[in-house]
Amino acid sequence: MSSEYKYKVTLAYDGTHYHGWQIQSNGIAIQEILQTKIQQVTQTDTHLIGAGRTDTGVHAKGQVAHFVVKAPLNLFRLQHALNRLLPADIRIAEIVEVPITFHARYSATGKIYHYHLHLEKNRDPFVHHYSWHIREYVDLDLLRMAAQLFIGSHDFTTFANDCLRGAAARDAVRSIYRLDVVVQEGGVRLEFCGNGFLYKMVRNIVGTLVSVAIGKLPISEIPRLFAAKDREQAGKGAPPQGLFLMHVNYPE
Amino acid sequence: MSSEYKYKVTLAYDGTHYHGWQIQSNGIAIQEILQTKIQQVTQTDTHLIGAGRTDTGVHAKGQVAHFVVKAPLNLFRLQHALNRLLPADIRIAEIVEVPITFHARYSATGKIYHYHLHLEKNRDPFVHHYSWHIREYVDLDLLRMAAQLFIGSHDFTTFANDCLRGAAARDAVRSIYRLDVVVQEGGVRLEFCGNGFLYKMVRNIVGTLVSVAIGKLPISEIPRLFAAKDREQAGKGAPPQGLFLMHVNYPE
Repeated sequence: MSSEYKYKVTLAYDGTHYHGWQIQSNGIAIQEILQTKIQQVTQTDTHLIGAGRTDTGVHAKGQVAHFVVKAPLNLFRLQHALNRLLPADIRIAEIVEVPITFHARYSATGKIYHYHLHLEKNRDPFVHHYSWHIREYVDLDLLRMAAQLFIGSHDFTTFANDCLRGAAARDAVRSIYRLDVVVQEGGVRLEFCGNGFLYKMVRNIVGTLVSVAIGKLPISEIPRLFAAKDREQAGKGAPPQGLFLMHVNYPE
Repeated sequence: MSSEYKYKVTLAYDGTHYHGWQIQSNGIAIQEILQTKIQQVTQTDTHLIGAGRTDTGVHAKGQVAHFVVKAPLNLFRLQHALNRLLPADIRIAEIVEVPITFHARYSATGKIYHYHLHLEKNRDPFVHHYSWHIREYVDLDLLRMAAQLFIGSHDFTTFANDCLRGAAARDAVRSIYRLDVVVQEGGVRLEFCGNGFLYKMVRNIVGTLVSVAIGKLPISEIPRLFAAKDREQAGKGAPPQGLFLMHVNYPE
């Protein structure tokens, strides 16, 4: 009888120099790099499944992935070996054994994303890979009021990109539990906590919030945008470099 | 009669992707990029003189440089034009007119450098270009005691690299007014304030301080190192990416 062991990996990465999480036809993906190193260390051809994709330039402080092997692993030594083999901009924070029923993507009950807006007149040369610089005056009260309109369960079709059309068109209802505007050095951080996010949903919401906060879009337009269920109606999405996948929630 | 106008530029840069400040035979230097842009905007072949060199990978939050032109400039427009033309990892913070006797290097009365040590067991993938990661246990009390021994006026020959041998051998006395160990998220920051620093002096001092703090070098060796006046006696210097030129002081 063959046995299987499943492991959950929590990792952080600076996405600046990678073509996102998912293996692509061109460019280097983080999933690919980590999978290759796990195969090398464990001497198996195991596959790595992530909780969710992050696009080119998007960062993660708490991405989660899982893999299966046929023999149990010494997790302390595995983590140490992987962190020695991985480039310095990808770090394993934790590896734990999980029940064979665990799935990094399908078991997830929610995610936390942060999006950083850099609001100083003089752009800080040290944060351009980690934030979106807004030159216009940003009204924080308006930003907070607009953010409130996204909290709760909504059909987010207007704020999702094409990628999921079809399947997603049938179920684009997601719940945002929390969307906080936190003031930090040099600007603000938007904290999204929800049960799931459609493709590019966070960046599209941020793009719309900023349009409102700089006075380009009346806040009264937001309910109409939701009702339209049409991506073409919403404005341009926010650029990738301000986005961080912070945490993936699983049932206890 | 020809007139001349001298301007002082204060700038910040992320040194990660540059071959230092000074124009080199190979690689791109920050001085070169900024000088080219100033020449382009002012339509002159002016030269840019910096307060001090920063090596490949070293950062600056307050580098200073000067240049001379034959006609007065609109400084608001110049700064705006330069920041539009410069890459996002180089930013002009300020441009002011200065007396023709001002010299970015020779008028400087002191400098402030910061050096960042990353001391967490799990290396943060977002700070590897901006700090030195020490895997060993660092004794902060020992680090502070060792730092005290560098404060004051000393002959720093042991802690200066070859580059200045000759001229420097005759005058390697410098004064460090302040050398503070400041605890910050993920580690500590060493703050150096002095009237001048020899080539690689900060990084060589940091390397020695860390050797003491991890128990590799007895603190009692430091006076002997000063007395030896021999670079070969001191340990390996700290890597460039933890170093930031924060400020250059000039007389009021």
